[in-house]
Amino acid sequence: MTGIMADWIAVDWGTTHLRAYAMGANGVLAEASSADGMGSLTRDGYEAALLRLAGPWLGAGTTPVVACGMVGSRQGWMEAPYRTTPCTPLDAASLVAVPTADARLAVRLVPGLKQAAPADVMRGEETQIAGALALLPGFDGILCLPGTHSKWVQVSAGEVVSFQTYMTGEMFALLSQQSVLRHGMATKDWDEAAFATALSDAIARPEKIAARLFALRAEGLIAGLTPAAARSRLSGLLIGIELAAARPYWLGQQVALIGADALCAAYAGALHAQGVPARILPAAACTIAGLAAARPAMEPTR
Amino acid sequence: MTGIMADWIAVDWGTTHLRAYAMGANGVLAEASSADGMGSLTRDGYEAALLRLAGPWLGAGTTPVVACGMVGSRQGWMEAPYRTTPCTPLDAASLVAVPTADARLAVRLVPGLKQAAPADVMRGEETQIAGALALLPGFDGILCLPGTHSKWVQVSAGEVVSFQTYMTGEMFALLSQQSVLRHGMATKDWDEAAFATALSDAIARPEKIAARLFALRAEGLIAGLTPAAARSRLSGLLIGIELAAARPYWLGQQVALIGADALCAAYAGALHAQGVPARILPAAACTIAGLAAARPAMEPTR
Repeated sequence: MTGIMADWIAVDWGTTHLRAYAMGANGVLAEASSADGMGSLTRDGYEAALLRLAGPWLGAGTTPVVACGMVGSRQGWMEAPYRTTPCTPLDAASLVAVPTADARLAVRLVPGLKQAAPADVMRGEETQIAGALALLPGFDGILCLPGTHSKWVQVSAGEVVSFQTYMTGEMFALLSQQSVLRHGMATKDWDEAAFATALSDAIARPEKIAARLFALRAEGLIAGLTPAAARSRLSGLLIGIELAAARPYWLGQQVALIGADALCAAYAGALHAQGVPARILPAAACTIAGLAAARPAMEPTR
Repeated sequence: MTGIMADWIAVDWGTTHLRAYAMGANGVLAEASSADGMGSLTRDGYEAALLRLAGPWLGAGTTPVVACGMVGSRQGWMEAPYRTTPCTPLDAASLVAVPTADARLAVRLVPGLKQAAPADVMRGEETQIAGALALLPGFDGILCLPGTHSKWVQVSAGEVVSFQTYMTGEMFALLSQQSVLRHGMATKDWDEAAFATALSDAIARPEKIAARLFALRAEGLIAGLTPAAARSRLSGLLIGIELAAARPYWLGQQVALIGADALCAAYAGALHAQGVPARILPAAACTIAGLAAARPAMEPTR
């Protein structure tokens, strides 16, 4: 068995997952992930969780590790205090070094960003933004990172000018799995027409959202709404009110979406219907490119 | 100890609670409640649950029992099929008799109401509506029943003309207790000014709701938002978008609110600020008056 030796290790460490990439001169040599997210670790468990995943990639010397995400929050491994917008998404001088017992590790955490007014915060997305700017040099415009907590980000001249967070994915999970709407709602099936109609309705009349939700339950009970249509309509309604509230971000702009393929495709379709061109960037590629952009600050370390 | 003997028994049987009232010629003689709601009972557990609570009130003969709420749903004791609006809130001929092993009981269930388009359903509220009409003879206008699933109801000439359900209370519970907003959110404390400002903002700009929620978390992290203000603002935002969507119901109307005192007072205050007069009816009194209105259909039973 030939071992993989990493030049450095890129780490995306969120609330529920830990993902690590063994990086070589030409990119990713290997990747690994585990469920050792911040939510399941105490402070003294981080180093062991990292070694379980990335230990096989370490040589005898010191290997740089650059990590972004909730690992740098107050409840994480060590706090990497927020930087304040407007600012570049990454600043090499602001990486926070974490002491480790294992001398083969030289770990640095990427700080998140905060915006004073309207108050907002991000952790992890700043790295994807930096990656997007590395992949699209000179990009000026809007980045949208849909997901559990969707972010809309205005980028200009290499800086994050402003951003806003929407709890769309979390609302979808709560309403589809834990509310009265879970009755009569599919867990996987999809009805594209139901999604598109609901999304269009919610963008056009977001002020009606509070009257739209219980109808999913009522139509299931008395009007034969299918579980797939119920789930797709819920998703369309929630993405629709996000797009309605985010209108000042995307109106008349060019948008690049960063996230899961299917989700980004849904957002891109909705934006196209509003006359807004949108391109899609793969989330993992942005994360890795962002961590790579932060890494030179750590030289020389071995 | 002198026993209480009921002429009949009024029962409000919902998802989480069972409430029974021993009724005499002049009203309530005694009341009792338990956590034996529909959610914790199987079909063959209902009679025993009722006897545990109301057994002491039974005489040797047959005692009429009139019950409303989820007890009459498909997952309840026995299904009392929905009646279709427009219709009176109660119809004596539509009560559903439930066979019991104990011959002292003569149980009837009140059916809920359904509306074909927009699809909607209610169970339990129809009885409170009937009670409100008994307490306010000749009432024409709008009834609002705020709560887990708020109902707005247009009543005219003694009939329910239309209604609409809002998941406001359930959304508040999910977001305040199970979402990321639970961090930094009080469980009881209240900030009236924060509530009023959020409510006013949400009524005026409901299309911004998706951008307002995560700010509660962000302001807690970086701007010192207190847990009491966070909870009150969340409540104001959610009630505000309900009122915005329900505008066609209340605009230019007279409104009677049925529900918990503090909640009704909050809705009444918001409606007054919009120039809409609102009176408050106690929920239990409406339930009992509604069940009493249904009861004559069961004579003679003893």
